[in-house]
Amino acid sequence: MAEPFRLGIAGLGTVGASVLRLLADRHDEFAMAAGRPVHAVAVSARDRSRDRGVDLSGLGWHDDPAALAERNDLDAVVELIGGAEGPARATVTAALAAGKPVVTANKALLATHGLELARRAEEAGVALVFEAAVAGGIPIVKTLREALPANRLNRVSGILNGTCNYILTRMEQEGLTFAECLAEAQRLGYAEADPTFDVGGFDTAHKLAILTSLAFGTAVDAEAVYVEGIASITPLDLTMADELGYRIKLLGVATRTEAGIEQRVHPTMVPKSAAIAQVGGVTNAVAVDGSAVGELTLIGPGAGGNATASAVLADIVDVARGIRRPTFGVPVGQLTSPVRAPMQRHEGGYYIRLSVRDRPGAAASIALRMAEQQISLDSILQRRPKSSPNASDGTADRVVPVVLITHATTEAAVRRALDAVLLDGHIVGDPQVIRIEKE
Amino acid sequence: MAEPFRLGIAGLGTVGASVLRLLADRHDEFAMAAGRPVHAVAVSARDRSRDRGVDLSGLGWHDDPAALAERNDLDAVVELIGGAEGPARATVTAALAAGKPVVTANKALLATHGLELARRAEEAGVALVFEAAVAGGIPIVKTLREALPANRLNRVSGILNGTCNYILTRMEQEGLTFAECLAEAQRLGYAEADPTFDVGGFDTAHKLAILTSLAFGTAVDAEAVYVEGIASITPLDLTMADELGYRIKLLGVATRTEAGIEQRVHPTMVPKSAAIAQVGGVTNAVAVDGSAVGELTLIGPGAGGNATASAVLADIVDVARGIRRPTFGVPVGQLTSPVRAPMQRHEGGYYIRLSVRDRPGAAASIALRMAEQQISLDSILQRRPKSSPNASDGTADRVVPVVLITHATTEAAVRRALDAVLLDGHIVGDPQVIRIEKE
Repeated sequence: MAEPFRLGIAGLGTVGASVLRLLADRHDEFAMAAGRPVHAVAVSARDRSRDRGVDLSGLGWHDDPAALAERNDLDAVVELIGGAEGPARATVTAALAAGKPVVTANKALLATHGLELARRAEEAGVALVFEAAVAGGIPIVKTLREALPANRLNRVSGILNGTCNYILTRMEQEGLTFAECLAEAQRLGYAEADPTFDVGGFDTAHKLAILTSLAFGTAVDAEAVYVEGIASITPLDLTMADELGYRIKLLGVATRTEAGIEQRVHPTMVPKSAAIAQVGGVTNAVAVDGSAVGELTLIGPGAGGNATASAVLADIVDVARGIRRPTFGVPVGQLTSPVRAPMQRHEGGYYIRLSVRDRPGAAASIALRMAEQQISLDSILQRRPKSSPNASDGTADRVVPVVLITHATTEAAVRRALDAVLLDGHIVGDPQVIRIEKE
Repeated sequence: MAEPFRLGIAGLGTVGASVLRLLADRHDEFAMAAGRPVHAVAVSARDRSRDRGVDLSGLGWHDDPAALAERNDLDAVVELIGGAEGPARATVTAALAAGKPVVTANKALLATHGLELARRAEEAGVALVFEAAVAGGIPIVKTLREALPANRLNRVSGILNGTCNYILTRMEQEGLTFAECLAEAQRLGYAEADPTFDVGGFDTAHKLAILTSLAFGTAVDAEAVYVEGIASITPLDLTMADELGYRIKLLGVATRTEAGIEQRVHPTMVPKSAAIAQVGGVTNAVAVDGSAVGELTLIGPGAGGNATASAVLADIVDVARGIRRPTFGVPVGQLTSPVRAPMQRHEGGYYIRLSVRDRPGAAASIALRMAEQQISLDSILQRRPKSSPNASDGTADRVVPVVLITHATTEAAVRRALDAVLLDGHIVGDPQVIRIEKE
């Protein structure tokens, strides 16, 4: 059998520990898959004394991961530290500078510095691979990079953050508020103490930016992603969605439009009959629309030590086999600069929930403002509080929810109409606007 | 840029024509993906004069595909003829003997002669790849072969035949009979004039045997697949399934059990909440259960010229890049001989529909026969004809459907119980037995 393939592993959190454990437990299977034995020879982490449930004896130890990356007895470096800057970036940069292939699970790093790192990998003539960076155990990177060369892709979208999907699933199932479900997710370890990065949609945006580059052959452009999180979703929105035949998911969506590449992350109403609507809890899903293949959907675990390690180890085997493809599917010089489609140009259907002062003529006035912007309404639902079924009892200050479902229109038209509605004084507070995806 | 990669294409049906068209339309994209230009130089088909909507000028023509395979100006042979024997087998054998990589979409050939062909490919030191042979455009072969080395797989299952799924979907949606929906599928070109191969489950069995080999590292063993088709499914079964919270799908399922590898194809009740239950029409889906990753589900088009060509072309690009992996994921010498788990050992829940003579004590007698075999019942449903809601009106010859749902039991116990029920004389005709999958 060929020479062993020697790994340095930087970062020994949950994923790093799983990678080490699986490398040991399935040594023979990896040797068969890679055509050569694969093993770790050195590691780096912050705390040498911590018990990670894996045997570190016989492995070199480095407090500085960049120093690990420079060891001359390594065939590849596995970066599992995380974060767009600091030690993760230093480690990957050092490894590529030393001419070593890199396997990483670091979405923030790739979303922020992916183009630069891809260029360095290309110059060094080594692989830079990152299956685990997007959608955990789902082989979406391999699929986009290798399985679809016959396709011009039109759209890639997905549930890319398990924390948000867990919270929305629990809100829907239990009728609880966002805050209650977030607290539950934090208790269960599905959400961080500071949840902003997840629930604000930023983690999804990083992953989407990477998928966009792979799908459309464009340079990673995370700053072009329009981002809304899920904190404003209420139990009433989920109830209304249910009545209308929808579920609410935080989707990342990248679309090829006439105005350019549109990248957006926001709560989205998807038909209950769609496969993606069945994806509950911490599970992830990615759908791809290609010119030849049509629609492909991949569903699976988006996080967890072993599921993420599964993706890392698939990359390791590819690299050990000597396979090297361009980082984002095409050579860096041929990645195009995406034309950003501004969110104002987005076209689609909308769910709009307003808190309307319960006065005669309010609904008609709102409908008129929509019509002025050429917005065609699919339906208007007015929900009366159960305690007072009568609309005309004269309590001018009472507020009732009114839901509008629009046919396809533009974001700009919706915003103009809502500005006019606000000026009319019929509504209280901010309108809730949720975009609808028909597929 | 590197030397062009020259293809010979044997078989110019829908898929072959799509491959030629896409190669021409996306020439630059394939060159970029493969790192070298990719083009067809020669083709073979039965009828030279037929208009396929693609330009064959400049391409060599061969009436005999095996002669095509032996041309010395080809870098790979693409076999799209179909069939386990005859010209398809001769072409692939000739190509491998000439030391040429082979790309094929031929599930029957692989299910029947896969082991022998994998050995020949290995001896010749060339790739034999077949993404398009299973589940059309879904990259399940790549996923099983490359994305999951960290996993011991426990189960692979799927909707692998679009014809059957189309018929079952229509029966469910419209309340039509099998025969009516089959005729409709034939009119629409979704079913052959002789539909036996599809609706009898044999096509699914071929595909399952290939997936089993990839998933478990076992030699292809298509003869070990237990097969039942969908012709016996009635509208009443679909109605009862719906009431019980299930849909009926023709699944291929391969499981690692204590008794060995169990491979089976039969109509299956799946919970409506499962992602696979949402897969309607001609769409395919494959689910994989792995020790590290957990459950992965891939959904997409299982047939169609362009979708299948999309898979063929992904293989072509891999081969053009010089990538060669063992045909079934591990070297032929390390494929194990599967221990076949006989269907009698299958364990699971069952839906049993009986046509019961409407006499006092019939249901109790049936329940007793189940109890004798230690079969625990989840529920018993008795459906009265709407015209006569009263059970005790004395018409001894009237027959009513009775549905039993069992908890997990064995196939053998169910068969013994049903034999006893038959002998008791309470039922008319054959019992309908549909296995239930909880996941």
